[in-house]
Amino acid sequence: MKLFEELESEVRSYCRSFPTVFTKAVGAKMWDEDNKEYIDFFSGAGALNYGHNDPKMKSKLVDYILADGITHSLDKATTAKGEFLTAFNETILKPRNLNYKVMFPGPTGTNTVESALKLARKVTGRPDIISFTNGFHGMTIGSLSVTGNSFKRKGAGIPLHNVVTMPYDSFVSDKLDTLEYLERFLEDRGSGVAIPAAMILETVQGEGGINAASYEWLQRIEKICKRWGILSIVDDVQAGIGRTGTFFSFEKAGITPDIVCLSKSIGGMGLPLALTLIRPDLDIWAPGEHNGTFRGNNHAFITATAALSYWEDPKFEQSIAEKSKKTKAYLEKIVQDYPEIKGHFRGRGLMVGICSEVEGLASKVAAEAFKRGLIMETSGPDDEVFKLFPALTIDNETLEKGFNILEQSVRAVIGKKELVTP
Amino acid sequence: MKLFEELESEVRSYCRSFPTVFTKAVGAKMWDEDNKEYIDFFSGAGALNYGHNDPKMKSKLVDYILADGITHSLDKATTAKGEFLTAFNETILKPRNLNYKVMFPGPTGTNTVESALKLARKVTGRPDIISFTNGFHGMTIGSLSVTGNSFKRKGAGIPLHNVVTMPYDSFVSDKLDTLEYLERFLEDRGSGVAIPAAMILETVQGEGGINAASYEWLQRIEKICKRWGILSIVDDVQAGIGRTGTFFSFEKAGITPDIVCLSKSIGGMGLPLALTLIRPDLDIWAPGEHNGTFRGNNHAFITATAALSYWEDPKFEQSIAEKSKKTKAYLEKIVQDYPEIKGHFRGRGLMVGICSEVEGLASKVAAEAFKRGLIMETSGPDDEVFKLFPALTIDNETLEKGFNILEQSVRAVIGKKELVTP
Amino acid sequence: MKLFEELESEVRSYCRSFPTVFTKAVGAKMWDEDNKEYIDFFSGAGALNYGHNDPKMKSKLVDYILADGITHSLDKATTAKGEFLTAFNETILKPRNLNYKVMFPGPTGTNTVESALKLARKVTGRPDIISFTNGFHGMTIGSLSVTGNSFKRKGAGIPLHNVVTMPYDSFVSDKLDTLEYLERFLEDRGSGVAIPAAMILETVQGEGGINAASYEWLQRIEKICKRWGILSIVDDVQAGIGRTGTFFSFEKAGITPDIVCLSKSIGGMGLPLALTLIRPDLDIWAPGEHNGTFRGNNHAFITATAALSYWEDPKFEQSIAEKSKKTKAYLEKIVQDYPEIKGHFRGRGLMVGICSEVEGLASKVAAEAFKRGLIMETSGPDDEVFKLFPALTIDNETLEKGFNILEQSVRAVIGKKELVTP
Amino acid sequence: MKLFEELESEVRSYCRSFPTVFTKAVGAKMWDEDNKEYIDFFSGAGALNYGHNDPKMKSKLVDYILADGITHSLDKATTAKGEFLTAFNETILKPRNLNYKVMFPGPTGTNTVESALKLARKVTGRPDIISFTNGFHGMTIGSLSVTGNSFKRKGAGIPLHNVVTMPYDSFVSDKLDTLEYLERFLEDRGSGVAIPAAMILETVQGEGGINAASYEWLQRIEKICKRWGILSIVDDVQAGIGRTGTFFSFEKAGITPDIVCLSKSIGGMGLPLALTLIRPDLDIWAPGEHNGTFRGNNHAFITATAALSYWEDPKFEQSIAEKSKKTKAYLEKIVQDYPEIKGHFRGRGLMVGICSEVEGLASKVAAEAFKRGLIMETSGPDDEVFKLFPALTIDNETLEKGFNILEQSVRAVIGKKELVTP
Repeated sequence: MKLFEELESEVRSYCRSFPTVFTKAVGAKMWDEDNKEYIDFFSGAGALNYGHNDPKMKSKLVDYILADGITHSLDKATTAKGEFLTAFNETILKPRNLNYKVMFPGPTGTNTVESALKLARKVTGRPDIISFTNGFHGMTIGSLSVTGNSFKRKGAGIPLHNVVTMPYDSFVSDKLDTLEYLERFLEDRGSGVAIPAAMILETVQGEGGINAASYEWLQRIEKICKRWGILSIVDDVQAGIGRTGTFFSFEKAGITPDIVCLSKSIGGMGLPLALTLIRPDLDIWAPGEHNGTFRGNNHAFITATAALSYWEDPKFEQSIAEKSKKTKAYLEKIVQDYPEIKGHFRGRGLMVGICSEVEGLASKVAAEAFKRGLIMETSGPDDEVFKLFPALTIDNETLEKGFNILEQSVRAVIGKKELVTP
Repeated sequence: MKLFEELESEVRSYCRSFPTVFTKAVGAKMWDEDNKEYIDFFSGAGALNYGHNDPKMKSKLVDYILADGITHSLDKATTAKGEFLTAFNETILKPRNLNYKVMFPGPTGTNTVESALKLARKVTGRPDIISFTNGFHGMTIGSLSVTGNSFKRKGAGIPLHNVVTMPYDSFVSDKLDTLEYLERFLEDRGSGVAIPAAMILETVQGEGGINAASYEWLQRIEKICKRWGILSIVDDVQAGIGRTGTFFSFEKAGITPDIVCLSKSIGGMGLPLALTLIRPDLDIWAPGEHNGTFRGNNHAFITATAALSYWEDPKFEQSIAEKSKKTKAYLEKIVQDYPEIKGHFRGRGLMVGICSEVEGLASKVAAEAFKRGLIMETSGPDDEVFKLFPALTIDNETLEKGFNILEQSVRAVIGKKELVTP
Repeated sequence: MKLFEELESEVRSYCRSFPTVFTKAVGAKMWDEDNKEYIDFFSGAGALNYGHNDPKMKSKLVDYILADGITHSLDKATTAKGEFLTAFNETILKPRNLNYKVMFPGPTGTNTVESALKLARKVTGRPDIISFTNGFHGMTIGSLSVTGNSFKRKGAGIPLHNVVTMPYDSFVSDKLDTLEYLERFLEDRGSGVAIPAAMILETVQGEGGINAASYEWLQRIEKICKRWGILSIVDDVQAGIGRTGTFFSFEKAGITPDIVCLSKSIGGMGLPLALTLIRPDLDIWAPGEHNGTFRGNNHAFITATAALSYWEDPKFEQSIAEKSKKTKAYLEKIVQDYPEIKGHFRGRGLMVGICSEVEGLASKVAAEAFKRGLIMETSGPDDEVFKLFPALTIDNETLEKGFNILEQSVRAVIGKKELVTP
Repeated sequence: MKLFEELESEVRSYCRSFPTVFTKAVGAKMWDEDNKEYIDFFSGAGALNYGHNDPKMKSKLVDYILADGITHSLDKATTAKGEFLTAFNETILKPRNLNYKVMFPGPTGTNTVESALKLARKVTGRPDIISFTNGFHGMTIGSLSVTGNSFKRKGAGIPLHNVVTMPYDSFVSDKLDTLEYLERFLEDRGSGVAIPAAMILETVQGEGGINAASYEWLQRIEKICKRWGILSIVDDVQAGIGRTGTFFSFEKAGITPDIVCLSKSIGGMGLPLALTLIRPDLDIWAPGEHNGTFRGNNHAFITATAALSYWEDPKFEQSIAEKSKKTKAYLEKIVQDYPEIKGHFRGRGLMVGICSEVEGLASKVAAEAFKRGLIMETSGPDDEVFKLFPALTIDNETLEKGFNILEQSVRAVIGKKELVTP
């Protein structure tokens, strides 16, 4: 690790939580230099929903490389891109009765968000965006302006503008209807809040504390947007691609966003890729009005296309549902069995965690887990949630093994006197 | 192409200039669906300085994939990253007496620029950045704010703030000293221009018209920055990695920027990667203050490391110098032989082109070239420059073949009556 | 009136509601060119709390002018200013146990607000201000940014920044606690709302609909400000100087703002004057850091000093209280007797009105009143309130005469069929 | 003075340069508590062009007050306002072939500037304003954003946006053509400078160093504005109302601004008043879109109307011209006779001064002058200019007496060894 300390910037972060040098990874497991095995309940913060180095994706990618397939193409047309577009349309959009134009905005989550905000402003001619408390959308200035976290926001070094933050579902309290507030602000012409270009939201907030909005709340958001001519943007970068149980996280809510942001696991194997899905009549971009050097990352098109085949078989969704159920039951049992952690279950699908009211506990649990061979992260403005993001393809044995390590870690932490609540 | 028109967003751009579906690429050549061969004088806008699918990089990458090397790692430590850091330090920094901490800010040019601007603001506590006319730094709001192009800027949909644009070398006229202006603004306390956090510039402006700043101008910029405690940021995303003849574009000017932005060809084979190089005492980031999902793109670490081996042998720089000389001589001959195009040579190294005063001519030349099997782009606020970005590794035969096609294209265009100047 | 249409800008406003040319005014009455008499229930939007052309103020002013007293002094020391400062300290501040430094920021309401916001930002080093729904603070860009009205805000022509609007007391409904909402935003580090430099508020919102915050709400605001180190700014431009019954509108709430903005009636006779009162330890202005040509309007110092003598006698407050009680009783009777207007009493002291749920009714009542010789205005984002701002010095006969005209106007309006609710 | 130190804010400024309490003033003279007489070469920073307490204005004002004329009227029509509008149209606009609608925006210079910027943005739909180095336009956020002085700008506490500062005439050097620079930014679509809504400028910069733009420069500005559809705003708050020799400062340049800002001496006697003059077809304000409590300051209408009578007789302009000539000759002699001050004459008309290259000299001269009974101020970003703003109505004897005091003060200062340049 000394090498990294010497040569790499102080900004590095996860390598401090997981202080070892990784060498190899397959499925839900990783190995380090000392060949120590780790179960990965982090999954690249949602970029590895299909696990590490999926054999089918690997094989397609290697074949493509050996055949001198185009690697980098900006936004020129390539066979690899054409095949991905076709597969995405046939496997994902059509069966869900969705009709979107696909934009490749540069291969990171923040790029798709930036493109979505630009387009919403262009379409409506309005500058403001409504974002939600504890939303996370990225680290470039446009995306950061709609991100809630104060530490991240301060990093901008300049005031962030053209955004109004509204309370997410259950933000004030479980009883308080946050949308009554939002609507009052919109309908009162003296509220100081102008009708915005768009609302941007995650259906489950990944970085902000694994907060899952209710379907009813999401449906009302959609209605409010329609009433006021506001575009709805779902940032499905982290919650999408099966993480909450369905390809898009909003499917079960029965809503249809005007714009959808995808990245992370859309590339299948962890290769950089991002998509912005646009309601066709909103696709009023001028050619090149938003661009980027790596928007044509063809290796990722290859693995992304291979990944879509998982969704051809309805059993895939069923298996996620089963694992989700199991995981939820397990976490609720933890909450019940260890009242000392003052825990609450959070999340949806395989995007879940436990929020602990005990200050610092979640981080300690994650640290203990790492020592025991489990990679797991925290979430929330005060790192108050320890979260479980296993690969969707994880086998039951590994999942349970991970559970066991987690429980040992919880025990280890609460065994320490300073944390025990009498 | 119909597939792309139907499924892909209207924002697509290069696929309109080069309307064919590409399938394969090796070195300086590409092939399309009909197996038509193209010479590539575009090189992925500078992302393919080593040509397409370099055999050594390919081979290392395939081996890595087959061995289940880590693909995606956020900013966890991996063997692939460690090896890249070591090689970059040994092969590039040390021999040039440079001492930088390396940050991986998310794998696109705009991400490295955003991180540089944030850090400069954090270090100095000042909000403003001085950018330069016709500078191009990216499409996310932070980078866009320091980009000059009015069409791109309007795409933001909001006013862009915290930036002052100063005239680049020779902006007003070849005779006018633009730095006299800049200094007056800095030294006069009533100028309306506050001392900024940083100046950001390209040594040769890639998108803005292949404008090459003189070494003297760059040296004076460095002096001005030092005098006022302003950080200097060189955006070497396009001009770096050998494009102008040396690894960093600023080497021959003898300057040492405080922060350097690298992307595009740093990944070697066109895979997404970006680096922000930081003067060690400025590296005051808090852990995770800037982050991004794909900042650990290990495939790119593998190919990037392989690419660095080119720089171990001084003959590589010599060969670029020879091709540069040849290309410059060739372009100057074009300018001389075809006075109808009212052309001027522009650029440095293999980042060169001809600026034509005849409106629309550059685009027509590029279009003709494409028909004849040469991929070439235009540059400048009015697309007034046709530019040549051959691979640094191109062989002489292919280079000359490209020259011939270019000359045929020029002839074809000026043969059209409406363009001939009597 | 044709003269004004031809020569004056389209921006003129009240001359459209009150289309006559006024010539003379005494106490609570005005006369126009045709010598028609009007009772003034508008009082210059709160700038004429002591009525028109108070004889004592007039006399002192004329004496001063005839003696060639300094008229205009920038911020030089003058006898007139010294006397005002002394009287203000002795008559107003000391008896109320208040300790403020007095700043003269330029003689309009918006100037004092701009100075208060600047100072709050300087003291705290924070950029943001929390304002409240339906707050009104002025029309220059700084003040406009903390003003709620969307029509006024759009007039800026640019997005307004560095402000977060929070719900005023009873904004959503009478039952909902808006401060629970506010506190959640402050305490959650992911809320997107940074701790601001200051909160700025009116205790009774003059332009925003004569909304009176409860004393409890104001007390809790003060507590919240203290808890988070936020400065409290009370904009008492309209509600101050006796309008709500006490010199400062916040006296009965028992709070002590950090900064107080005064203008309108502080000058006594309607002459331009504004004060910013500053908690002494916050008075960290550098000399001249905020200035303005007319901050030394000595004529206004003379009349302002004369006006303060009203406050030497406790009977003055008692008389306001009596008139307030009478006016409230009268308005509540109107509400009861005319259910067709769907009215609700609003306000405090002599800053009162009736909010009507019948669209357009308030404006019609005001228009009818004008025809009958009563000057009265509307308020609220949809002009849904007709408001009564009689001079604090009005005699009972004139007050009652005004009441009668108002009632006749209400009757006239609801007599019109389209407004009668069956 | 102790009274002011105790009760008034630290922001006070001129009372520190002129530490005495003034009581009385007539014409070009002031007296303090000790009945010491001062010649006033400051004239309220240009608000007292007709001197203090002009007898005719006084008389009209006292008559008006005694007759209970309307004092405060918001923007209601009054006889006093009607008479002013008529007189302004007949005496000022018509004889100069000018056609403007008159707006009363609130009675301070910064208010008229804010209204002008708003209107320019509304008319053009563009956010940016071009301002000029060392321009001064006011202290509220909108006006401050177009003000050059860095100390004033920092006082905002927030970054100031939507403005681009261009070099004023002779900013870099007397030889360099600053408009060539400006035009390059406008015509190059990659310059980072968008076509602005307006350019705002003073023809002679009052606070910024008494810099007088040449007529040719002003004419070229007008042409550039017309070429690009940019509105021209002349801020004539300080340079207008005869200060440079003609009523409007731009008359001799032969230009016709689209919008003109007036305040300071427009009120005649130093009473707060401001006007925004608007080209009739640009007067697209909605009623009340910009407003302010004191926009109907009728006392100022009375004195302003009386003041206009000065302009009915062409001898008034002649007398200013004579005094200007004399003053210039005198100042040039000072420059010549005292080479130690390294002085340069600056200004136009009776808006003149000497710029001294000796650091701190101008302030010392002003301080010496005050001791000797002459009130005089400095100007420029480093207070490097001592300026003379005598009343336009000053008699020759007083003017010369002032000159003598000034010369004594210069001698006194350079007699001090540390300032003498060998």
